Amino acid sequence: MRRRLERNGVFDQMNIIVDAFGGDHAPQAVIQGAAMAVQQLGVEITLVGDEQIIRKTAEEQGTSLEQIRILHTDEVFEMHEEPTSILKAHKNCSMAVGLRALRDDQGDAFVSAGSTGALVVGATFLAKRSPGIKRAALAPLLPTAKGVSMLIDCGANADCRPEMLVQFALMGSAYMKNVMGVENPAVGLVNIGSEDTKGRELEIETYHRLQEAPVNFRGNLEAREIPGGEYDVIVTDGFTGNVILKLYEGMGSFFAHKLKDVFSGVSGKLSAALVLPRIKAFKKQMDYSEVGGAVLMGIAKPVIKAHGSSDARAFYNAIRQAKACVDEKMIVTLTASVAALQAMEEKKIERA
Amino acid sequence: MRRRLERNGVFDQMNIIVDAFGGDHAPQAVIQGAAMAVQQLGVEITLVGDEQIIRKTAEEQGTSLEQIRILHTDEVFEMHEEPTSILKAHKNCSMAVGLRALRDDQGDAFVSAGSTGALVVGATFLAKRSPGIKRAALAPLLPTAKGVSMLIDCGANADCRPEMLVQFALMGSAYMKNVMGVENPAVGLVNIGSEDTKGRELEIETYHRLQEAPVNFRGNLEAREIPGGEYDVIVTDGFTGNVILKLYEGMGSFFAHKLKDVFSGVSGKLSAALVLPRIKAFKKQMDYSEVGGAVLMGIAKPVIKAHGSSDARAFYNAIRQAKACVDEKMIVTLTASVAALQAMEEKKIERA
Repeated sequence: MRRRLERNGVFDQMNIIVDAFGGDHAPQAVIQGAAMAVQQLGVEITLVGDEQIIRKTAEEQGTSLEQIRILHTDEVFEMHEEPTSILKAHKNCSMAVGLRALRDDQGDAFVSAGSTGALVVGATFLAKRSPGIKRAALAPLLPTAKGVSMLIDCGANADCRPEMLVQFALMGSAYMKNVMGVENPAVGLVNIGSEDTKGRELEIETYHRLQEAPVNFRGNLEAREIPGGEYDVIVTDGFTGNVILKLYEGMGSFFAHKLKDVFSGVSGKLSAALVLPRIKAFKKQMDYSEVGGAVLMGIAKPVIKAHGSSDARAFYNAIRQAKACVDEKMIVTLTASVAALQAMEEKKIERA
Repeated sequence: MRRRLERNGVFDQMNIIVDAFGGDHAPQAVIQGAAMAVQQLGVEITLVGDEQIIRKTAEEQGTSLEQIRILHTDEVFEMHEEPTSILKAHKNCSMAVGLRALRDDQGDAFVSAGSTGALVVGATFLAKRSPGIKRAALAPLLPTAKGVSMLIDCGANADCRPEMLVQFALMGSAYMKNVMGVENPAVGLVNIGSEDTKGRELEIETYHRLQEAPVNFRGNLEAREIPGGEYDVIVTDGFTGNVILKLYEGMGSFFAHKLKDVFSGVSGKLSAALVLPRIKAFKKQMDYSEVGGAVLMGIAKPVIKAHGSSDARAFYNAIRQAKACVDEKMIVTLTASVAALQAMEEKKIERA
């Protein structure tokens, strides 16, 4: 906690920097979620964005800005812009300003519901990667029958090499262990069969490297096993992971829609009334806004990508998730396990 | 129909060759499904496999073998064998014997629930590809909100080049048009965003080629759109397609299981009774055994891969699907559109 006290004395608590102008419901939902986090989690928040709009919105919707600092910038990163433009043309957007504040130790973690591509580029080049990390990876938590599983990568890297996938396994394990409290997280490699000869060159080579990596590797997993929740960390390239994430979401809303059809009309409503607690429990289990956001793993400090459609509750949960990453020293564990892997590999090279 | 009359006079109807020893419930379910097809579809069937066992099983379960010919071989392709061994070590297995019979014009189509890998290798090298086709592709039909969509490829080719994906689009369109009666099948390319700059090199190059191909290309599709059924043909490489298929199946059974939980106990049963017809209709809509099997597209004659867990009804439906491919001259359309594409490409080269 020493570092925090060294700041100019205004903040002696954990401070989470939040992009006030990312997402479909910004800034209203962001401000509300931030206020909820201040009240319920005891953190302080730095909202990044147009100060006048933030103050006016807060007043209009009656949200208290107590324990909330505002870092002013009047530029917003628009969704249609090229992700790399965050580094030059749009370097003063709220996302970029927030990421630089994170790098400059003005906060402990960063949350944004803005452009995923810009966040990956911005976090990598403005806030920097953890030591030894080759590529940042986007890792959402999928709701499953047993809780949640981390899918890594889900879109930061469309093309991957085996050594990147091995690091994804390490990063996912560090998160599931430290933040989610899973004892010995089970790691699976997404593949089209269980044998080690299955898949593309990427999977075959990654399989053998994962067998020697300091993770609890349980072999190949087929996508049909994901909802069952047997694997805590689901490793794949960003293209495949993105397809999995989107199909997971798509199937979820498809079934929710179908369920609504089943329970429509008079007989449907009567029927639903009889099993209402179960339907509610199931909906809550599969609800993304309860889970938080996707973690951008591999950055020197925790960065959370909240869903674009986040409401206040989803922002609150993303901030809660950011706080847990800081509390549980996720980055420290991650850095240690990456160093352990490197040491192992150097030893192998020496031996050879 | 001339060709059929030229045979030795025993068969003057359509004849479907069926591997009697493929799948978890062989040969019982295969024999039953074949008998159902004879009765209801007016086709003749050639069952390939051990004649003594087939006759004994039919007698035991009281299934008529009328209009069913038996092509004897006592070898079976075991699921753990290397797919390529169908060409040499296991060239006398029921699947290989059936595929050679198909090639030698002893039947009009082939159905098997045996090893997918062996079927792809066997069909390609024993029954041969259609003229101009680079690679055979496995194409299941996914149940959607609007009917079914064809996913192509779902596992025959883990690594693909753009020209292969363009042919997949042509093959899928030929099937959806001729066999499913879709006027102008909408083709989508699986990708991680809608813009033509998204994805890997494979998707970017394929996107531009599909724009010029003789198909109704509607651009990139994100996996979340699949259940909605807006695209009739879903084009992707065999690795991604296999992941999609398995996740689709896995999510389907996950939700079916959850629905069962919701409707358990006394209040659950009462609740279910109120909406039973809707639950049944939904289950039927999402039921793979109603849809038939996956089509192995690109082979000179229709080849259907039935699901490994097929019961008699699923075999019947796979045979019905094989018959529809023959009836609607799917291969003729496919060959014509491949030729049209080739002509277009040659013209382009001439102009250049």
